[in-house]
Amino acid sequence: MASPLPVSPPAVHVALSEGRSYAVHFEPLATAPMHLREAGLSGPLALVVTDETVGPLHLGALADALRADGWTVEATAVPAGEGSKSLDQLSALHDWALGLGIDRQTPLLALGGGVVGDLAGFAAATLLRGIPLVHLPTTTISQVDSAIGGKTGINHATGKNLVGAFHQPRLVLADPATLDTLDERAFRSGLAEAVKHALISDPALADRLDREWDTLVARQPDVLAPLLRDAAAVKARVIEADEREAGERAFLNFGHTFGHALEKEAGYGTLTHGEAVALGMRAALHLSESLRLGQVAEALGPFAEADRLVARLDPPAPTLAIDALMAATEADKKRTAAGVRYVVLDAVGRPRLAADVDDALLRAAWRYALSA
Amino acid sequence: MASPLPVSPPAVHVALSEGRSYAVHFEPLATAPMHLREAGLSGPLALVVTDETVGPLHLGALADALRADGWTVEATAVPAGEGSKSLDQLSALHDWALGLGIDRQTPLLALGGGVVGDLAGFAAATLLRGIPLVHLPTTTISQVDSAIGGKTGINHATGKNLVGAFHQPRLVLADPATLDTLDERAFRSGLAEAVKHALISDPALADRLDREWDTLVARQPDVLAPLLRDAAAVKARVIEADEREAGERAFLNFGHTFGHALEKEAGYGTLTHGEAVALGMRAALHLSESLRLGQVAEALGPFAEADRLVARLDPPAPTLAIDALMAATEADKKRTAAGVRYVVLDAVGRPRLAADVDDALLRAAWRYALSA
Repeated sequence: MASPLPVSPPAVHVALSEGRSYAVHFEPLATAPMHLREAGLSGPLALVVTDETVGPLHLGALADALRADGWTVEATAVPAGEGSKSLDQLSALHDWALGLGIDRQTPLLALGGGVVGDLAGFAAATLLRGIPLVHLPTTTISQVDSAIGGKTGINHATGKNLVGAFHQPRLVLADPATLDTLDERAFRSGLAEAVKHALISDPALADRLDREWDTLVARQPDVLAPLLRDAAAVKARVIEADEREAGERAFLNFGHTFGHALEKEAGYGTLTHGEAVALGMRAALHLSESLRLGQVAEALGPFAEADRLVARLDPPAPTLAIDALMAATEADKKRTAAGVRYVVLDAVGRPRLAADVDDALLRAAWRYALSA
Repeated sequence: MASPLPVSPPAVHVALSEGRSYAVHFEPLATAPMHLREAGLSGPLALVVTDETVGPLHLGALADALRADGWTVEATAVPAGEGSKSLDQLSALHDWALGLGIDRQTPLLALGGGVVGDLAGFAAATLLRGIPLVHLPTTTISQVDSAIGGKTGINHATGKNLVGAFHQPRLVLADPATLDTLDERAFRSGLAEAVKHALISDPALADRLDREWDTLVARQPDVLAPLLRDAAAVKARVIEADEREAGERAFLNFGHTFGHALEKEAGYGTLTHGEAVALGMRAALHLSESLRLGQVAEALGPFAEADRLVARLDPPAPTLAIDALMAATEADKKRTAAGVRYVVLDAVGRPRLAADVDDALLRAAWRYALSA
């Protein structure tokens, strides 16, 4: 276990209109009462939704800190894993919360990774037409990505995240010490979104990730926290510019159109989301080079360094049919009437959308990613 | 049947931030294709959700007009009535819409009264984290009130409208001719919200409603449409000032804290919402006078004229126990930690919130409303 951070990095501020701005703190969970007050949230009742893995690890300390500050804490744990992003679990959370006599000021705290954040966030979005939401992300991927930006939702028989809402949190408190309890695969693959943020928007951060990779994956707190914080800041800047994914926010899907197809074809749960995104970024980098050349690229060219950074995420190489992957991307939710759009780079930090991409270039990108 | 309106009243504009402004038109349903284009909505696919009463009356003409303009129309009808505001119906709409291959630009048109608007609106709010919503309200109450402002939702075992979201429409098209098919009770009691809008914000509109009442309830189009339009405009101004019900929007609850208790105690479906609100406004006017005097009022004083206007709505006088009604208001969703707040008037057009209201004044208000 790492010792507590001597100094926390400065908070990331997400500036939105109409009083909906919020802060993302990289500090210990024990600071929750202070930050709830700063965010204007008051009790006495606070709801905590967690899962059966995270609850035993972190709920006790959180609840103790809240109770010591005068909060009445009611907590519930859903089963860990993607299966909890269901209408049944959502309905169970509605029943639970409404049975506790909440009002529109009652905050709901989501303690866990992406599944808990998405599910509990959607419950907060839909209880009394929206109650205050606080994200307490406990995974790499949720700390730098999913806890920021207001996407909430559940899965549907026809695809992931197809039912949901935008509901911005009032506060995000990411405790880097909670990452100590992640297994190696979850920790490392979760860094995929941090790498993605660097590649689409911050070449200096990409250099730092590359340079400090070994201490980062050793989870050394004084290296880990500032890097996570800066990766989260990229997400915050994109959200500020395009809250509802009408434009720039689409760049956050770098690697994701490929990645979603990989997750689906490998069978959900076979690859982690981070692993699929890592492989997807390798395909997207190859496609970027092909589009730069105007023909199928033989090598990564100016994107070779970025690709080496992605390779540090160490994704597995699944054996999948390219025909099936090509078909799966056609079903991606981000498609418009204009067809599937791929996020590619003109250079590190300079993303753009490519539509009407030639199948030959896509197939070459898939071949590269699956054999790299 | 009334003949088509010679001239439609000017549209009401709802000015919101971030490109979310929209227009409320009082024009024939056949103008839908033109207004969809003006609102920037494009197809080819359009979803229409209606109910089994309204569908047979108005869906054919709407679908014909849309198809003639190049739209592909997919329609579904839910059972008429409050029972359709359920998680099961919501889930069925999700399945239906996602099975049709919608994307984030596909508009969902809600053709019907408050139930269809609330249910279909919530489906639109939660499909792909929000698809464009168009309200085509066909009842008095939805044309002047519920189609405007973005409240959507379903009922829960613990109360009405406890699960939902704010999702503003992109367009509201209210065809006054559709009101011709309402029965007398639904038409007249639905005017309660128009009377409410006048009383909280527009004394001149209150005078016009009083003066033109007979031609209004005869559904004479040249009188009906401009009055509905001006009542809708009051709602629009309140929404602009306070979209999320943090302040001024609470004034729209004039008569509703009493009204919700009446609906619940009479048994949902016994009173129409408009009838309950009408009785609730009579109680609220009595309370307003008691608070003005600082003691239980013997008569309505300066609110007598307003009360005569409310009485024109002709609500029934249910036999209910005041103790039960007092208890039911305690459970109202709008309560805060500070207790139940009642909207009262200092004068017609000058509402305010009253908290910590003495039980004796409340009981007198109930007695007045139930015996008036």
